[in-house]
Amino acid sequence: MNSKKPTIAIVGVGLIGGSFALALKSAGAVEAVLGYDLDGENLKQALELGVIDRALASVDELVEADLVMLAVPVKAMHSAARECIPSMKEGAVLTDCGSVKAEVVDSLRPLLENVTYVPGHPIAGTEKSGAGAAFDSLFHDRHCIVTPIPESSERGIELVSALWRSAGCDVVSMDVEKHDRIFAAVSHLPHMVAYALVNSVGAYDRYNENLLEYSAGGFRDFTRIASSHPIMWRDIALANRDALVEMMEHYLKYYGELLEMVRSGDEDALLEFFVRSKNNRDALLEK
Amino acid sequence: MNSKKPTIAIVGVGLIGGSFALALKSAGAVEAVLGYDLDGENLKQALELGVIDRALASVDELVEADLVMLAVPVKAMHSAARECIPSMKEGAVLTDCGSVKAEVVDSLRPLLENVTYVPGHPIAGTEKSGAGAAFDSLFHDRHCIVTPIPESSERGIELVSALWRSAGCDVVSMDVEKHDRIFAAVSHLPHMVAYALVNSVGAYDRYNENLLEYSAGGFRDFTRIASSHPIMWRDIALANRDALVEMMEHYLKYYGELLEMVRSGDEDALLEFFVRSKNNRDALLEK
Repeated sequence: MNSKKPTIAIVGVGLIGGSFALALKSAGAVEAVLGYDLDGENLKQALELGVIDRALASVDELVEADLVMLAVPVKAMHSAARECIPSMKEGAVLTDCGSVKAEVVDSLRPLLENVTYVPGHPIAGTEKSGAGAAFDSLFHDRHCIVTPIPESSERGIELVSALWRSAGCDVVSMDVEKHDRIFAAVSHLPHMVAYALVNSVGAYDRYNENLLEYSAGGFRDFTRIASSHPIMWRDIALANRDALVEMMEHYLKYYGELLEMVRSGDEDALLEFFVRSKNNRDALLEK
Repeated sequence: MNSKKPTIAIVGVGLIGGSFALALKSAGAVEAVLGYDLDGENLKQALELGVIDRALASVDELVEADLVMLAVPVKAMHSAARECIPSMKEGAVLTDCGSVKAEVVDSLRPLLENVTYVPGHPIAGTEKSGAGAAFDSLFHDRHCIVTPIPESSERGIELVSALWRSAGCDVVSMDVEKHDRIFAAVSHLPHMVAYALVNSVGAYDRYNENLLEYSAGGFRDFTRIASSHPIMWRDIALANRDALVEMMEHYLKYYGELLEMVRSGDEDALLEFFVRSKNNRDALLEK
């Protein structure tokens, strides 16, 4: 990082953008945090709560920022970038925190004339949203994936990585395609599986009982992730569609095999399947 | 409960049986806890840890117990009952804690000559097993389902319910079939879904990376329940096969619909599906 602390701007001061701002302010890592948001009420709240130091009335003021963080939904990244980049100063750093990278990178690439872009994805979140949900320790001990592209400058990569480290993250670098496949597997697929589970059990509720009361943990865990933001998850599913369809089909094969084992009462195959799952899990944990 | 505190016997002093013993001892609800276990090492440990007051060398000594709790795997219930019941005193109460009820009830019914049987199922557990894993607060604020059958005496139902309440449970009574369908939905199906997910992602691990490191919660929750005891879950899947197959097919319909929505990029259908899931979850929580 430069010896002079950077002034940063958060575009979309929600849970992620707001928590990034609070974490950097707590760490004393930034000169000032500017905020811009299409939702005037949310922006006002962000200022009142001290999440940002100044609320921008227009994107023109982004010229003051050394770094602009796009913290809007994946699907809004392109229009946010198109609105903001022309106002950014020459050589400033643009970053984002979208949970899908290839589609965002492809859509921003044609817009990068005057800025250097370093895509990122912090692995953190809660079910809540808006500036009021932000808190400064959201990223403590979490990973942040940075996925540099050929156009990313070394200086930009260093600044983005340093800020995420200041926010509490362990920063990992990987290429865009690998990122999207890994997150299709460990995040997007589990959400699809959970959404389907909750809807299937919800529709089954023939006893007019609070089924959740009878769940010892398994179903409760599923319902937690199935209550994630519907619009955000629609956009993620569509933005990472190819990798997600591949993973969903892959899962279907395993689930179908398991269903046949239960249906046919195949004791040995069931035990092998469950032992393998336990081993897979232990292997994942130990690696 | 009688004014005189009952002497109880735990057959299978593992996590559930041992925790039941410890909870009742902590509550001062029993005169003494006898323990019987085919695993001599586990029984010795149970005695040393004070989980039980006395280790029985043979089932003959079960005659001293006012109540016998069968806390063995579902599949072992029949043989445990066949071994124990002839030694129980006339009119003593038999109960169990199996997580599937119809199969256990059907298999025990022909054996009940001298005793009164009250089936039960406490909704609690951890991934650990054995007497060493038992602790006295496992059942605090958890539900225990009691599923009386026509042969259950009022006195037996009262004693079993009172003991579970002393152990910290909120006791709910329902019929056997309803129990098995509800738990196929909220417990057994989620486990099958989680096992299949972990195996499919495990087999996909093309990047030789610790994928778990990149999971913000969703996958971690799944892997937790997919590390449950393989033999126990094989037996549950088989013992509750009809209800489970029905639920697994029901789930498959929803998952298949979701896959088609992602594949075809149907924005409206995806949003509706995710909103419905969130609403289902909220409705389940509020009911």
